[in-house]
Amino acid sequence: MLSGLVLLSGGMDSSTLLYYVIETLKYDKVEAIVFDYGQRHRIEISYAQTIAERLGISYEIVKVDIAQFGGSSLISEDRNLSVVVPGRNAIFLSLAAAYAKTRELEDVFFGPTLEDYSGFPDCRDSFVRLMNRALAIGIGIRGIHAPFIHLGKKEVVALGKELGVPYDLTWSCYFPTDNNKPCGRCHACMERELVL
Amino acid sequence: MLSGLVLLSGGMDSSTLLYYVIETLKYDKVEAIVFDYGQRHRIEISYAQTIAERLGISYEIVKVDIAQFGGSSLISEDRNLSVVVPGRNAIFLSLAAAYAKTRELEDVFFGPTLEDYSGFPDCRDSFVRLMNRALAIGIGIRGIHAPFIHLGKKEVVALGKELGVPYDLTWSCYFPTDNNKPCGRCHACMERELVL
Repeated sequence: MLSGLVLLSGGMDSSTLLYYVIETLKYDKVEAIVFDYGQRHRIEISYAQTIAERLGISYEIVKVDIAQFGGSSLISEDRNLSVVVPGRNAIFLSLAAAYAKTRELEDVFFGPTLEDYSGFPDCRDSFVRLMNRALAIGIGIRGIHAPFIHLGKKEVVALGKELGVPYDLTWSCYFPTDNNKPCGRCHACMERELVL
Repeated sequence: MLSGLVLLSGGMDSSTLLYYVIETLKYDKVEAIVFDYGQRHRIEISYAQTIAERLGISYEIVKVDIAQFGGSSLISEDRNLSVVVPGRNAIFLSLAAAYAKTRELEDVFFGPTLEDYSGFPDCRDSFVRLMNRALAIGIGIRGIHAPFIHLGKKEVVALGKELGVPYDLTWSCYFPTDNNKPCGRCHACMERELVL
């Protein structure tokens, strides 16, 4: 029996990943973990819930206060800061692996893509390989997998469309307006428009 | 200039480590990070504060709710469970590395010893080496160091006594009594009595 935990943000990539693990990889037992880390675009969490519920997948929303460390526009009032949150994926993967262990789920999946390579050092293959081995040894899960790490977002979305991912139920914008609409101007909004 | 962040629990090993980084390694800029993770022996946090204050070191107490994952007697009402908290050190090291990055501290130190090897897979050299490389790449710190990983607790305490560590201001017990005294019966209490 194949069992796995998917890091689900409510965005296009991780939503596609959840469909991929269920439909393509045919995992028998799949759950999701959603992080509430003080992101300005907290609205993405409700999108993650909708996607998980639509697939009948149980999910856990895990709070972790990385905003206390500051340094990124995603978790600060200062929109001009970098969108890199130092250590975000190391923290998320460690928490996810610990949660997977207690839920008896063997594999942990997360969804960085080729576009994330340049801006986010914790979305690179070298980082994922090391975390994979560290967490397998240290926590006793089977491994960390990032199956889209060498795919561009366009390829991911093409795959997702084949799998029937409802992209209208996903969220991308980093800086939602006051009435929770996408800003249409941030990097995430522009990328979304390019690939959808 | 050498700068570092020490994971400080308030126990013997990490208190010795803090003295070691300052007195032996002669780090110029040293801070401490203390985790409040839902441990039953939360009292250790006040011991950590006392040690840091005695050395004039700034510290940050970081809350992370790993109790929500359950599975260990250290964070549960059930004393008969294992004392292993799945993923604890992966989570702590990831958070510490992220915090070190935002504080511009280059090195992260933590204090597993030889005795921790058998019971705690996340205290082993192989795990630490992989996390060291993963977090250096993924977060951009210089590295993770566990200088006591091949020393027995007796050796650590002998070193600490030379350095003047006030062991009466450290805490070991996993299961404090209702009036916050050491239980005298748990593994941590017995180990403490053996080595002090």
